[in-house]
Amino acid sequence: MTNWLQTPLIVVNFKTYFEATGKKAIALARAAETVSMETHTSIGVAPQFADIAAVAKSVSIPVFAQHIDPIDPGSHTGQVLADAVKEAGAVGTLVNHSERQLRLTDISAIIKIASGKGMATIVCANNPETSAAVAALDPGVIAIEPPELIGTGIPVSKAQPEVVTDTIKLVREINEKTIILCGAGISRGEDVKAALKLGTEGVLVASGIVKAEDPYAILREFAEAAENKEKQ
Amino acid sequence: MTNWLQTPLIVVNFKTYFEATGKKAIALARAAETVSMETHTSIGVAPQFADIAAVAKSVSIPVFAQHIDPIDPGSHTGQVLADAVKEAGAVGTLVNHSERQLRLTDISAIIKIASGKGMATIVCANNPETSAAVAALDPGVIAIEPPELIGTGIPVSKAQPEVVTDTIKLVREINEKTIILCGAGISRGEDVKAALKLGTEGVLVASGIVKAEDPYAILREFAEAAENKEKQ
Amino acid sequence: MTNWLQTPLIVVNFKTYFEATGKKAIALARAAETVSMETHTSIGVAPQFADIAAVAKSVSIPVFAQHIDPIDPGSHTGQVLADAVKEAGAVGTLVNHSERQLRLTDISAIIKIASGKGMATIVCANNPETSAAVAALDPGVIAIEPPELIGTGIPVSKAQPEVVTDTIKLVREINEKTIILCGAGISRGEDVKAALKLGTEGVLVASGIVKAEDPYAILREFAEAAENKEKQ
Amino acid sequence: MTNWLQTPLIVVNFKTYFEATGKKAIALARAAETVSMETHTSIGVAPQFADIAAVAKSVSIPVFAQHIDPIDPGSHTGQVLADAVKEAGAVGTLVNHSERQLRLTDISAIIKIASGKGMATIVCANNPETSAAVAALDPGVIAIEPPELIGTGIPVSKAQPEVVTDTIKLVREINEKTIILCGAGISRGEDVKAALKLGTEGVLVASGIVKAEDPYAILREFAEAAENKEKQ
Repeated sequence: MTNWLQTPLIVVNFKTYFEATGKKAIALARAAETVSMETHTSIGVAPQFADIAAVAKSVSIPVFAQHIDPIDPGSHTGQVLADAVKEAGAVGTLVNHSERQLRLTDISAIIKIASGKGMATIVCANNPETSAAVAALDPGVIAIEPPELIGTGIPVSKAQPEVVTDTIKLVREINEKTIILCGAGISRGEDVKAALKLGTEGVLVASGIVKAEDPYAILREFAEAAENKEKQ
Repeated sequence: MTNWLQTPLIVVNFKTYFEATGKKAIALARAAETVSMETHTSIGVAPQFADIAAVAKSVSIPVFAQHIDPIDPGSHTGQVLADAVKEAGAVGTLVNHSERQLRLTDISAIIKIASGKGMATIVCANNPETSAAVAALDPGVIAIEPPELIGTGIPVSKAQPEVVTDTIKLVREINEKTIILCGAGISRGEDVKAALKLGTEGVLVASGIVKAEDPYAILREFAEAAENKEKQ
Repeated sequence: MTNWLQTPLIVVNFKTYFEATGKKAIALARAAETVSMETHTSIGVAPQFADIAAVAKSVSIPVFAQHIDPIDPGSHTGQVLADAVKEAGAVGTLVNHSERQLRLTDISAIIKIASGKGMATIVCANNPETSAAVAALDPGVIAIEPPELIGTGIPVSKAQPEVVTDTIKLVREINEKTIILCGAGISRGEDVKAALKLGTEGVLVASGIVKAEDPYAILREFAEAAENKEKQ
Repeated sequence: MTNWLQTPLIVVNFKTYFEATGKKAIALARAAETVSMETHTSIGVAPQFADIAAVAKSVSIPVFAQHIDPIDPGSHTGQVLADAVKEAGAVGTLVNHSERQLRLTDISAIIKIASGKGMATIVCANNPETSAAVAALDPGVIAIEPPELIGTGIPVSKAQPEVVTDTIKLVREINEKTIILCGAGISRGEDVKAALKLGTEGVLVASGIVKAEDPYAILREFAEAAENKEKQ
């Protein structure tokens, strides 16, 4: 398996933010790459589909799609083919983000398709029960994100620590290998540290980095918090 | 208005065909560009999102997205932002293809967003009535495609000529400017000629070109048929 | 055509309100029937699917479904068949409410199915342009409802009168027959009067009646306002 | 827990079949009730929303909705409220049928809502992995139905016995209580017997009964096969 799956893992979801579109996506990915190299922390970025190729050419850190569709090559219009984002440079994909929720059947199909192509899946879930359900589908990574905290700056690790610990408990009963991240409201180094202390292996973050005045500085704070946690 | 809107207009939808993904998308777009230059015919291509940037860098003919979402920049994951595909090089987008059907509200919102950014919209419709409905939303182009003929090689211009003529009649009662294309089953030059004789101003084509043994040759046949029609 | 299409027309959408479910739906429908008989005003009610049969048995005013699916009898699960709601007593259906938005293709198909069974369609639209698009599909009734005003108590006829007048203008260019209602925020008799003065032929209302302390009283106020308008 | 959960359990999905709509739905439910009484077998019926009340009034066997939406009472149009179908007489609901597939988040929410109202959930899944995922959400019943066999008359218990046994194995690792049914292609008593021998506790059936020339006779064959299996 590719070594980007080393933990702690920080994944930055670029969403469709103005600050992370086109050339700005490349600049943001470069900042992430710099932090990753400086701190020896595993950092991935998930730009928009149209930016994957340019981002992947510009940096050597792992690049993820934000979504792929449960399709094989063929007669589909306006959908996202795994092969296309892979050839563009993506090593994996987010799946079932709370802003792009999927049918259970499609989550299962996407994990199988990605897995068959050697692509990683970071499957989002909104609560401990759905996280456990996802665990049964055996993705590489599960990211627990209570939707009501997304974009609030109120970290799930502080506001709802029991959501995180319940998730870990339920997921581990079903799946011992899958990496568990948490997300929603992560905006400071201490949030990352708290997330790791609760037992997660990293964070999925978006606005906390993308909309920061100095994304490099905040991401560096994240990475140092993650590494300090590890060294303790 | 950009001169790619000159008619007759041939738009090649790459869909998610294996033969039109990644490097193959670039090769196919280059073949289209060659035909366009040789025959002075307006030809556009609609590759997958992840291929837009590379295709747009490789050719000078108009490049379209296959879909955009009705969103502004912001907190959306796995969606297609107009600004992103535009910065990648798309001059417009397909909308509401029968393989990516949209809610009426979203078609309206997408046309407004695209129009506000100077992007063209090629809105697909499945019958004369829905074409008329689309006409009321004032897109740049309407493409009538009976879904049951897509991919069959049975051209709509031959199998259901009254669908095409009814569409033109109903659309023109509502909208005098919008360009009208037809699609589904177009695979030979004579299909293109028949489509133009019925009163359309071009064709939307996919498998007829993408899955042809020699896409250049077929596309050239299309272009010549379109031009001969014009000269008559 | 059934005489319930006489205008002014008041249609009460029961939604899934607690106050309009089960036995409460019957009570509310009876109040509507009483007002209709007392004031000789055409009033329709749109209860939930499971309540249609009991409501239709209890009252003689027109009963509408809140939605039907674009399907024929057959292998469909959890969908709403026109024949089923018709046999239960519905004379028509709401279509494309902003809380149940539909694909353009499906709106068109539903109108055709309903029309073929002699059922009326009240198609909702969110702005003048989409109303015009709906007009091209020739439904019995169009209801313009700006979604941002729904449930606010701020009547569209006051907050955005130009939305109503623009809708009437655009719809009438395409369709002379369709009845035009307006909705969203209608909660007092004067809102109804204002709506009619702007040129609509009635209102689509929900919380303004369903969640009123005395639905009978408010509905009577609506009906009197509608009739007074007519007499002037 | 209600005693209709006694196994073996036969659930008849009426879908939107012409033969199971309106008065025909009542007749079919009565046939099911007769068989249930004659053979002391637990048989449930799932008619369309608009038919639930009339069916529930006509028979004493358990009646299920074919779907409910993940909503609380309130401002929702054209959706199916648990309270409404419960008041109409449903004791539970099908969830996530392959013809009404749902997002993972919604399956989870529906199970919680139904459970909170004392309603049973029969959650459909299309393969062993998704069945395991559903098991993590703790529904009352899981029904495994390979979509490609639905309506074929080729029973899953014969065509893909390993799908059934794999499902049982994976589900039981996660959930010991949930009842496991299988469906798709069940059309004869021997199919029911085979299904039970593989370890399921009943069947979910639709066209095999609904479209049979003599639904009573076939259902009786099913019930006897189920009971014989039990007595062996």
